Amino acid sequence: MGTGVKHLLDFQGWTVEGIQGILETADVMKEVLERPVKKVPALQGITVCTAFFENSTRTRTSFELAARRMSADVLTFAAGASSLSKGESLRDTIETLNAYKVDAFIVRHHASGAAHQVAKFSGKSTINAGDGRRAHPTQALLDAYTMLKEFGKLEGLKVTIVGDILHSRVARSNAELLDLLGADVTLCGPATLLPKELQKGRVKLTNDMQAAVKDADVVMALRLQQERMNGGFLPSMSEYALTYQVNERLLELAKDHAIVLHPGPMNRDLEISGSLADSERSRIIAQVEYGQAIRMSVLYHLLVGKK
Amino acid sequence: MGTGVKHLLDFQGWTVEGIQGILETADVMKEVLERPVKKVPALQGITVCTAFFENSTRTRTSFELAARRMSADVLTFAAGASSLSKGESLRDTIETLNAYKVDAFIVRHHASGAAHQVAKFSGKSTINAGDGRRAHPTQALLDAYTMLKEFGKLEGLKVTIVGDILHSRVARSNAELLDLLGADVTLCGPATLLPKELQKGRVKLTNDMQAAVKDADVVMALRLQQERMNGGFLPSMSEYALTYQVNERLLELAKDHAIVLHPGPMNRDLEISGSLADSERSRIIAQVEYGQAIRMSVLYHLLVGKK
Amino acid sequence: MGTGVKHLLDFQGWTVEGIQGILETADVMKEVLERPVKKVPALQGITVCTAFFENSTRTRTSFELAARRMSADVLTFAAGASSLSKGESLRDTIETLNAYKVDAFIVRHHASGAAHQVAKFSGKSTINAGDGRRAHPTQALLDAYTMLKEFGKLEGLKVTIVGDILHSRVARSNAELLDLLGADVTLCGPATLLPKELQKGRVKLTNDMQAAVKDADVVMALRLQQERMNGGFLPSMSEYALTYQVNERLLELAKDHAIVLHPGPMNRDLEISGSLADSERSRIIAQVEYGQAIRMSVLYHLLVGKK
Repeated sequence: MGTGVKHLLDFQGWTVEGIQGILETADVMKEVLERPVKKVPALQGITVCTAFFENSTRTRTSFELAARRMSADVLTFAAGASSLSKGESLRDTIETLNAYKVDAFIVRHHASGAAHQVAKFSGKSTINAGDGRRAHPTQALLDAYTMLKEFGKLEGLKVTIVGDILHSRVARSNAELLDLLGADVTLCGPATLLPKELQKGRVKLTNDMQAAVKDADVVMALRLQQERMNGGFLPSMSEYALTYQVNERLLELAKDHAIVLHPGPMNRDLEISGSLADSERSRIIAQVEYGQAIRMSVLYHLLVGKK
Repeated sequence: MGTGVKHLLDFQGWTVEGIQGILETADVMKEVLERPVKKVPALQGITVCTAFFENSTRTRTSFELAARRMSADVLTFAAGASSLSKGESLRDTIETLNAYKVDAFIVRHHASGAAHQVAKFSGKSTINAGDGRRAHPTQALLDAYTMLKEFGKLEGLKVTIVGDILHSRVARSNAELLDLLGADVTLCGPATLLPKELQKGRVKLTNDMQAAVKDADVVMALRLQQERMNGGFLPSMSEYALTYQVNERLLELAKDHAIVLHPGPMNRDLEISGSLADSERSRIIAQVEYGQAIRMSVLYHLLVGKK
Repeated sequence: MGTGVKHLLDFQGWTVEGIQGILETADVMKEVLERPVKKVPALQGITVCTAFFENSTRTRTSFELAARRMSADVLTFAAGASSLSKGESLRDTIETLNAYKVDAFIVRHHASGAAHQVAKFSGKSTINAGDGRRAHPTQALLDAYTMLKEFGKLEGLKVTIVGDILHSRVARSNAELLDLLGADVTLCGPATLLPKELQKGRVKLTNDMQAAVKDADVVMALRLQQERMNGGFLPSMSEYALTYQVNERLLELAKDHAIVLHPGPMNRDLEISGSLADSERSRIIAQVEYGQAIRMSVLYHLLVGKK
């Protein structure tokens, strides 16, 4: 076991086999999470540092719980609350944390590319937990895993991702991963929020919601970052919801077995209708559950055997 | 052992026997806390989530330490600092935390009834750590335990609770529990802050401090929430202190053996005189100590045997 | 082993032998930190409370990781985020935390002398992690340890400390410790920031940078607290940097083997030039590393054998 890869920053340099290894080990971890005692000793004595330069209790919590369930020690570094926000450079902060002798970093940062810098500065195994608009690979892995558990395979699935594609690291990482694994991806949103360079391989762009959702197996609604509204990128929220809300009426165009995903947290009745989120089509809670298994699996592949 | 009760939301549905079970196990936990190594393996492999939607370092800390001393893993979710405060519903937040496969919730929330909702949404054992003005049952249990350690029994004790009764979950939970256990409770405060519906069973209301404290065995001063001052509920602080401060002169009316309690944190020389808080009558530090034993006992009764 | 000393508040009451004991045990801990599994069972069952009334993620994190690597349980109490900041006295807060049955306190506070009060109020082993402008003894110990690892001895070393001496607990603790251990200390900064009372024993004061750094073995730049600028203590930052920045040109005056220290976090190109901080002379990362070993050693000396 083990992928031979040291970091998970994005999917550059990852092979289909490496990714399949992660998805297979996630099955083992999923089974661990169904036991009364949800703990394995794989990372005993290992210290994992969550370095979050952007506030995200949800993602940090998911990673820390996954690490602790592998018996790792966790060093929480939430930079928002820190004196290190007093003008210290990213490099100095990481070199300081590194000098505490941690074995791996899990990084979230508002700047695209920050996770690569952490990997370089620290020399330690680094997991990107979201950097700017660039990548959020464990989210894409848990999304792929959710589809796999539903349909048994990813090849040939039609996956439609709806929302502010331009600013979304979730959309970018999903497009990268799903293309690699053989799914057909349609990215859909207002024309101003569809970056042309994402159209390649099996990935298509459109601002036509009906066409995008037609015959889809999976429809993913992205969280609408309400702070974007001020940037002039989007009209009013109600106008956005009128055209781009993922809801039950829209889903009638998709395949009968189509499922709905959302990376959370949701703005109910904005980017997704509350009734659809609570319907039988929704796998939103499953995504969160599988996120634990995926993160445990990623930690396993990157860290076991490096002690 | 075990009460057969799944939640501690308030004392509805609890029997005197069930509560006595909690108080008896607290004796065992108190003894554990006197050992050099204050730890028992009872909750090994169990994950307890403290979901605090209202900031309270003190209460959260007390619960988390209690859980860790039972060898549980603790998932801290402090919503104040969280991105989940960005408009996510309570239900979505709880379902997300629940999907991380936690075994129990300890909830604090500014809305009355929130703990019941968490129990319903999660389906997991839930402890109410204070919801709105409704209930704070572990505080009432530790108060009752403090009285029990002092006087050997609760039946027939005269317990006087002084302050802003209207907004106090501590007063409500104490009234509910002490009435059940056979103590006579007097709730005393300004007339505008005495909700009529609390007058039932052994519970009396009065705005006459002298009558309330006369022959009392226990006098409890409630914390004055200074933000209430702005609501027009109370005159100036000094005027409040003049009439309703619990102090040594007032305690001369109580029984010779009378003790003084306060749920903390205190506003010294406002709702309680500093000298009384430091006097031999004070059991305020004992309350904090016993709070550890009570919370360990509650966790034991709700969770052991459910692994 | 064990120094027989209960607290580390400053170096009053410490002997050279006691300090040498700390420095020697740090060697053992340094070796533990080089192992794959960086953990020893020395403090199993012990609960250490970090009571930080002044925000310092860096220092708190270093202590907590050290404590957990000794297998202690850690109770984090960050008062900034706490409801206890609502006017509760230091004594009431400490007595409350103490009633949770913690075994030791690690305290940071904005008021000089606060750590002594915590030791008195709690009766428990107390480590001062920085109180006002008074003392920060573990910083001084890790600085001394860094010099010791470099030069094999401290006697006769010329150590120059540059910056805002007046407000610096790091300068005070270093002067106290280095004087005790036989090094010659020069404190250098603007005349208005050089408190006369520090001139005693082997400690000299000067505002002449060239003289201060000439033939130095060690040059330590203090962090410039930018908020001081407003107090009228200092001219503009660029003017300060012009005269008192520690940089490569200045270091030409020092001994060939001279090293540079900084307690962190750095304002690069303000109190220290970035290129010097990254040069071969810099031991700034080593300081952070050795900080782990020193803090583990201090915890060992104060707490082992007291269980």
